[in-house]
Amino acid sequence: MVVMAATTSFFRIWSPRHGFGCMTSHSKLGCKVETIDVCDTKTTCDLSSCMQLKRKSDQATSGVMDWSMFVAAITTNFLEREMMFHLKKKSQTTVLDVGLGRLVQDGLIYRQNVCIRSYETGPDGKTSIETLMNHMQDTALNHTKTVGLLGDALGSTPEMKKKNLVWVVTKMQLVVDRYPTCDDVVQIDTWRAVSGKNSGRTDWLFRDSQTGKILVRASSNWVMMNKETRRLSKYPDEVRAELEQYYLDTPPILEDDTKNDMELDKSVEYVRKGLLATWKDLDMNQHVNNVRYLGWILESVPNQVQENYELASMTLEYRRECRKDNVLQSQTFVLSNSNGEKVDHNHVDCQHLLQLEGECKGKIMKGRTRWRLKLAKEGESWDN
Amino acid sequence: MVVMAATTSFFRIWSPRHGFGCMTSHSKLGCKVETIDVCDTKTTCDLSSCMQLKRKSDQATSGVMDWSMFVAAITTNFLEREMMFHLKKKSQTTVLDVGLGRLVQDGLIYRQNVCIRSYETGPDGKTSIETLMNHMQDTALNHTKTVGLLGDALGSTPEMKKKNLVWVVTKMQLVVDRYPTCDDVVQIDTWRAVSGKNSGRTDWLFRDSQTGKILVRASSNWVMMNKETRRLSKYPDEVRAELEQYYLDTPPILEDDTKNDMELDKSVEYVRKGLLATWKDLDMNQHVNNVRYLGWILESVPNQVQENYELASMTLEYRRECRKDNVLQSQTFVLSNSNGEKVDHNHVDCQHLLQLEGECKGKIMKGRTRWRLKLAKEGESWDN
Repeated sequence: MVVMAATTSFFRIWSPRHGFGCMTSHSKLGCKVETIDVCDTKTTCDLSSCMQLKRKSDQATSGVMDWSMFVAAITTNFLEREMMFHLKKKSQTTVLDVGLGRLVQDGLIYRQNVCIRSYETGPDGKTSIETLMNHMQDTALNHTKTVGLLGDALGSTPEMKKKNLVWVVTKMQLVVDRYPTCDDVVQIDTWRAVSGKNSGRTDWLFRDSQTGKILVRASSNWVMMNKETRRLSKYPDEVRAELEQYYLDTPPILEDDTKNDMELDKSVEYVRKGLLATWKDLDMNQHVNNVRYLGWILESVPNQVQENYELASMTLEYRRECRKDNVLQSQTFVLSNSNGEKVDHNHVDCQHLLQLEGECKGKIMKGRTRWRLKLAKEGESWDN
Repeated sequence: MVVMAATTSFFRIWSPRHGFGCMTSHSKLGCKVETIDVCDTKTTCDLSSCMQLKRKSDQATSGVMDWSMFVAAITTNFLEREMMFHLKKKSQTTVLDVGLGRLVQDGLIYRQNVCIRSYETGPDGKTSIETLMNHMQDTALNHTKTVGLLGDALGSTPEMKKKNLVWVVTKMQLVVDRYPTCDDVVQIDTWRAVSGKNSGRTDWLFRDSQTGKILVRASSNWVMMNKETRRLSKYPDEVRAELEQYYLDTPPILEDDTKNDMELDKSVEYVRKGLLATWKDLDMNQHVNNVRYLGWILESVPNQVQENYELASMTLEYRRECRKDNVLQSQTFVLSNSNGEKVDHNHVDCQHLLQLEGECKGKIMKGRTRWRLKLAKEGESWDN
């Protein structure tokens, strides 16, 4: 509960206790939320049972949907039984890497079980934040693929491909309650929603597939960019028509963090200069992947923070595109009180800036992170 | 076939055409090898059908083996059918991430199907060499787990754990015929063998699960190190007794590369200084993982090489441990002929050195790599 208190003080988190819809105008529809507690293993009500679902065209997609649901029915039953069997035996037998994704909740949520592989964990046995973001990206892509809208390898729809458009993330918010560890089977739900006139939203919810406990919540905003001109584009009607039947009519899983930057006078600055964007940092659209930007931000977070604290939450705002051969500098400002000390022993708050070096000092990304003291291992305490 | 010619000129590769056993003293046992060609999709004989298997104690492990084989029988049949079904439909439906490993070939080979996830591929759509090594590490760990010998999270056996011993890699050889791409389902076989008095060997064979074509071959040598003193250890009898029943009596899949370093007079040197080993580079045994060493080596390979060529083969020799807070420098020597030009337009040969910076200039790792010109995409040619 300390964790929850910490994270809610930083972000106002959407909580299943209050529910999608139940706090909105849809509450009149009679949605009931019962004994749900995100920290309680006795969760009795599925998250999405109180969601207000919106489906603009069932007919248009019935072929794909029905087929997928049919396959899901076979594979899910088999795999869930297998999974429980393996989980009980996993120390002695095979490792399970369940990856058969499927549509649930009237076809509006894509759900995939992901087994955390050994190399996805760090020295403390926990997954890195980059790994979580990789899985977010992968499941969103698989969602697009599953509904038959994958126009290219990076999630563009067929109409986007015709118009030479690609997705670009503008904002990413994430809260981690617990980091998964090796062999954990994590159930990842992802869904899309409308967000303003020219952008879309993708949300994720990670749960421990054994206990149902929520691990990670994330919400992101996306716009479209012309692949050739590299300029942002309006949301074409044809693309909207492709996507809107899969939109879930819900508020974001994390309430939009619109907090202004704090004063930086009383902060300690850490800088990592000369970060070069090379060919290896590009994705198949020849632009730098958003997970790479986070990696660069973390380059300037002092080791003492990364070693003794874990990232509890973050908001990243992507301002402009970084291109191959750009040289960047990453700045982290560790916030402190008026005496230059940390405000709270259990937490570190940081602000971040990633900008181009040289004459054109364009801001590539800015962000905020909150780090919480790692829980001491048995018989061990953190000095700091 | 150009690829094969290239790689065999660098390493003498074990080939199924000649077979395990068939070129050794076991050939008298009457093993027949028929029409196998590693580049032929019409491969008619399973690799391991001509292996000479060695099993010192069937009784000791029969419980685990029988149970595993039983589970494998259920899951394999189901998943293989499902897999083929999904592969045919994958562009429209769900992505498959098959990860149920199992023992095959009389329980001496561990086999796992791995689906390449979207984030495991680079700008050219192919997996990185680090990703291949991550999967090698993961499947070797799962092998140990499957036979019930996992004493800790990093592959130590129960007897090793009692004696405070961990595995340390001393040599890694790898040849890549083709890099897997996104959504490829790769069948990875791994097995262990004895290698000298105080070391063990682990080999891997990656195949395209649809065509059976060989993608990657790798062979590695391991010794034991005391976790506290950080000194190498003899191979204790108790550990040998645990492991030898799972040893396959075969030569390495890649013949041991004992070539001495070439003269470096006619080479161009590239250096990357100031590489800092931080907490993030450690694994759960608090030592730097061998995949990280490779990452550092690649830091000094010029971008022009990484962009226009792909790594075809490598030999890495791990000389001493690198510790947290060590500062390293990575050196790459691009080999050339007596006129200072590349020997062969289609290939780049490199030598590598990773050593400590400062007063104590200890060699951490040395290696050799061969890179081949990437195949031009349709309608595109490489300038270089």
